[in-house]
Amino acid sequence: MKINVEPQDPNFEQRVRESFARQSIMRLIGASIALVEAGVVEIEIPTRKDLTQQDGFMHAGIVTTILDSACGYAAYTLMPSGSAVLSVEFKVNLLAPAAGELIRARAEVRRAGRTLTVCSADAFADGKLCATMLATMIRRETQQELR
Amino acid sequence: MKINVEPQDPNFEQRVRESFARQSIMRLIGASIALVEAGVVEIEIPTRKDLTQQDGFMHAGIVTTILDSACGYAAYTLMPSGSAVLSVEFKVNLLAPAAGELIRARAEVRRAGRTLTVCSADAFADGKLCATMLATMIRRETQQELR
Amino acid sequence: MKINVEPQDPNFEQRVRESFARQSIMRLIGASIALVEAGVVEIEIPTRKDLTQQDGFMHAGIVTTILDSACGYAAYTLMPSGSAVLSVEFKVNLLAPAAGELIRARAEVRRAGRTLTVCSADAFADGKLCATMLATMIRRETQQELR
Amino acid sequence: MKINVEPQDPNFEQRVRESFARQSIMRLIGASIALVEAGVVEIEIPTRKDLTQQDGFMHAGIVTTILDSACGYAAYTLMPSGSAVLSVEFKVNLLAPAAGELIRARAEVRRAGRTLTVCSADAFADGKLCATMLATMIRRETQQELR
Repeated sequence: MKINVEPQDPNFEQRVRESFARQSIMRLIGASIALVEAGVVEIEIPTRKDLTQQDGFMHAGIVTTILDSACGYAAYTLMPSGSAVLSVEFKVNLLAPAAGELIRARAEVRRAGRTLTVCSADAFADGKLCATMLATMIRRETQQELR
Repeated sequence: MKINVEPQDPNFEQRVRESFARQSIMRLIGASIALVEAGVVEIEIPTRKDLTQQDGFMHAGIVTTILDSACGYAAYTLMPSGSAVLSVEFKVNLLAPAAGELIRARAEVRRAGRTLTVCSADAFADGKLCATMLATMIRRETQQELR
Repeated sequence: MKINVEPQDPNFEQRVRESFARQSIMRLIGASIALVEAGVVEIEIPTRKDLTQQDGFMHAGIVTTILDSACGYAAYTLMPSGSAVLSVEFKVNLLAPAAGELIRARAEVRRAGRTLTVCSADAFADGKLCATMLATMIRRETQQELR
Repeated sequence: MKINVEPQDPNFEQRVRESFARQSIMRLIGASIALVEAGVVEIEIPTRKDLTQQDGFMHAGIVTTILDSACGYAAYTLMPSGSAVLSVEFKVNLLAPAAGELIRARAEVRRAGRTLTVCSADAFADGKLCATMLATMIRRETQQELR
């Protein structure tokens, strides 16, 4: 489903990993990057008791956190150097309890525009589809006022 | 904008607070309930460095976490006793950086059905609108298989 | 809920009405503009048998058509002259059957940015809330390549 | 991406086509069913001047109309006989102008539950991706009060 485009910046992986390292929230929740390719990013998070909702499953907001970052960085891989990426909006459907040991979010770019990039992402709980996201990301010049 | 309906369970506030107390993630991120009324719930979270994204603002996923719980519990206030509430889906627009000292999410029920409840919610960063959610929640019998 | 901003172009109403007149679909389905104010647009459509889905209610896509145009034009009222407006994305919740005699969509701008504008809109069937939209619109220079 | 499930009603295709025939709107806009398989439905519509928005492209609401019906009927293929299907909500991203001669919407079931079914759908303008939808459908007993 993902589009086939050439990255404009050959150093996209390093750029993604450096930005991810600045997302303090990822350390708090124990998330890490599992894959960076042109137009595709995967982020993983082991389930943990202190990340759960009232029934003991991972909270939808935490699943959203890694889906959103995966989408943002998937978009970012295709942006030119000197870009910043911001989430405009996203929609998430929760399909099954986020249970098990490991949640993995995989995001793919569906359309890469000059300004806006649209991504879709799926989250898997121990390999079973548990949530899906459709998201819009925006590119900003690094020095530009944010959003 | 919120609907005007009588709660079916007069103990709705206690029910909401007990369920919220079981959401371990809320302790981890420092969120607390600020308001529980029939059809309305507010959740607050002081900003914290370990909850941020790459630019130092609160991560959209964390803002979503309190928006989603606020919507779920707003729906829950109008459900009969013996109900469980689950998120079906939500959509979030990020409107401004989630900066400042305190993020407050306020959710209101727009339509309460037998099975599905639709809520809208706004998040404010030090009083300034920074995100908005439109969400669908589902009611389950407590003993029923989840979703 | 709508924001309080000054329109940048005092001729915004004329601009909206001229653009609406170019939307051929509105004639086909019998929709008309009911209100144009800075940041607010209403579009109405009498129900008609040839606009229905399988149960005899107005098709969700037709309700969406007037919600989307109402959002687009609400955004357009606040854009400078020389702008074109395009829908980036929208999400619709269907809350009740779109039945009765008249469907009215009312859209309000929630956030007006340089590039992106976020609107919310409600649709009412004979005054009863039947659908709600949350939408993102984009501004383009009139001569610019579309999207 | 679509799920692999056995239809519960072997007559699903007939059921879909009969329901589609009752959607008056489809005749008005000239849409027809192009494919019905278990979990997959395609609907096509030739572009027409009287279906356009202000720039001469197919209005997003019309593209949404066929995306929504395609999702509804994809969900419907997997429901037991005696079911009715209704849209709960959908989100659409517009990716490119809906131009050219033929718009085709292809919907696939992502998760089929007892009550709720989640579908994704893409719309193609002369084969080029122009819009994508993520939607939630609900099953009702035919005789049950609608939604």
